[in-house]
Amino acid sequence: MSERSAIILLSGGLDSSTVLAEATRAGRRCHALSFRYGQRHEHEIKAASAIARHFEVREHTVLDIDLAAFGGSALTDEISVPKDALEDEGIPVTYVPARNTIFLSFALAYAEVREAREIWLGVNAIDYSGYPDCRPEYIAAFEAMANLATRDGVEGRGVSILTPLSRLDKTGIVNRAFELGVPLEHTHSCYDPVESGASCGRCDACLLRARGFDGANRTDPAP
Amino acid sequence: MSERSAIILLSGGLDSSTVLAEATRAGRRCHALSFRYGQRHEHEIKAASAIARHFEVREHTVLDIDLAAFGGSALTDEISVPKDALEDEGIPVTYVPARNTIFLSFALAYAEVREAREIWLGVNAIDYSGYPDCRPEYIAAFEAMANLATRDGVEGRGVSILTPLSRLDKTGIVNRAFELGVPLEHTHSCYDPVESGASCGRCDACLLRARGFDGANRTDPAP
Repeated sequence: MSERSAIILLSGGLDSSTVLAEATRAGRRCHALSFRYGQRHEHEIKAASAIARHFEVREHTVLDIDLAAFGGSALTDEISVPKDALEDEGIPVTYVPARNTIFLSFALAYAEVREAREIWLGVNAIDYSGYPDCRPEYIAAFEAMANLATRDGVEGRGVSILTPLSRLDKTGIVNRAFELGVPLEHTHSCYDPVESGASCGRCDACLLRARGFDGANRTDPAP
Repeated sequence: MSERSAIILLSGGLDSSTVLAEATRAGRRCHALSFRYGQRHEHEIKAASAIARHFEVREHTVLDIDLAAFGGSALTDEISVPKDALEDEGIPVTYVPARNTIFLSFALAYAEVREAREIWLGVNAIDYSGYPDCRPEYIAAFEAMANLATRDGVEGRGVSILTPLSRLDKTGIVNRAFELGVPLEHTHSCYDPVESGASCGRCDACLLRARGFDGANRTDPAP
C-alpha cells in the first residue's frame, strides 16, 4: 500500500510547489514536510500550507528547527539580504550551512516512519550554480548514504530522491507550473518580504522569479 | 587558528563522554553538541552539561529537535522500552529512524559555522551490530556526502568524521574511560530512568553498560 507514498519537501515557493504538483500528477500519496528554521518570516509556512491544501496532501508536517543557533547565513541571522543584484558566480550569502542535508535527513526519518520510498525535492539548474547542496552529485551522495542509514535501506527497501526540476531554469519551471495548474498566487519566494507578506521584489529570489515569469511571457499572480 | 577545532556529539553517556575525553586529550578545541529530541527525560542533557563542564569545552550547544513529530521509536514515543533482555540480533526497537543522520547533519552545519574540520562521534562495535547508522560504511558514506554538501567541502576544506571507539566493545570503552579520567559518575546511559534520574538497571543500555563494567572489573560510580 505504501509503495506509492512520497515525502515532498515543501517551502511554499515556486519550485517546491511545482514539485508537489508533479508528485500529485504522478499519483503519489503526498506527505509534505516544511520547516520553520529561524527565518524572519512566517509567510513561507502560510504559503506552504495553502499549497498543501490545494493539492490535498495526505499530511502536512511543519517542523521547528533552530538553524539560527549556529548563525552563519542571511536567512537565519542578522546579515542583511542583498538587494538589486543577482550574484551570478560563487556561493551566495544566502547560503545556509548544510541546510538541504538537514532537511533531507528529517525527510529520511519521515519516509521511514510513513513507509515512503521517495523523497521529492525542488533543486534545479539555477540553484546548483550557487548552492553546493543542490548539485546532482550531492543528491546522489545523499541517496547512497541514506540507503546505508536506515532499517529500510538495510532491509532492501531503499529510498530514492527525485528532483524533477533538475534540468530546468526558472522559465522552464514557470512554464511547467502553469501546465500543472500550480496556484502561483499562493506561492512565496521572497527572502525578505515586507510586513504584509508581499514580496520585496529586489532580493535574489524575487529577481530570479521575475526573470522566470518574463522568460515565459507570463504575469506573476503573487502579491 | 581553527584547524584544531572539533565538533563532538555528546549525549552524556559513557561512549560520547569518552569520545570528548579523547578529543580533549588530542588537543582539540571542543564544541560539544547535544540534542533534546522528544526524549522522556532531561537527565541526558544534565549529564552532557556536567561532562562538558568537566572537560572545559569551548562551547556546549543544546538543540531542540522534534523527532517525536514522526513517532516510530521507543525512545521518542509511547512504545515501552524492553527490559531484562539484551537483543543480540537485528535492529532494536530503540532504533530511531535516521537519528545519527540528523545529528551529523546539524554537526556539519555547526562545523562549517565554527570552521571546524572534524566531527567526533561515539559509535562502536556494539552499536553497529544493531543500528545501521553506526556502521563504518555508513560513516564513510556520510563523510563523502558531507564533503559535497558545504561551501567548505567545495572549497577544499572538507570535514572528517572521527570514531575513536569504533573497534571497542563496552569493556574496552570502560577501560579507556578510566584511562582518560572520564568522570563516570556524571555519565548517563539509561533509556528509561526512574524519576530521580537514577538508571533503571534493566534496559538494553543499562545491561550493556553493566556488562562493560563487569568485563573491566570495575564498579560503576553512576547512580
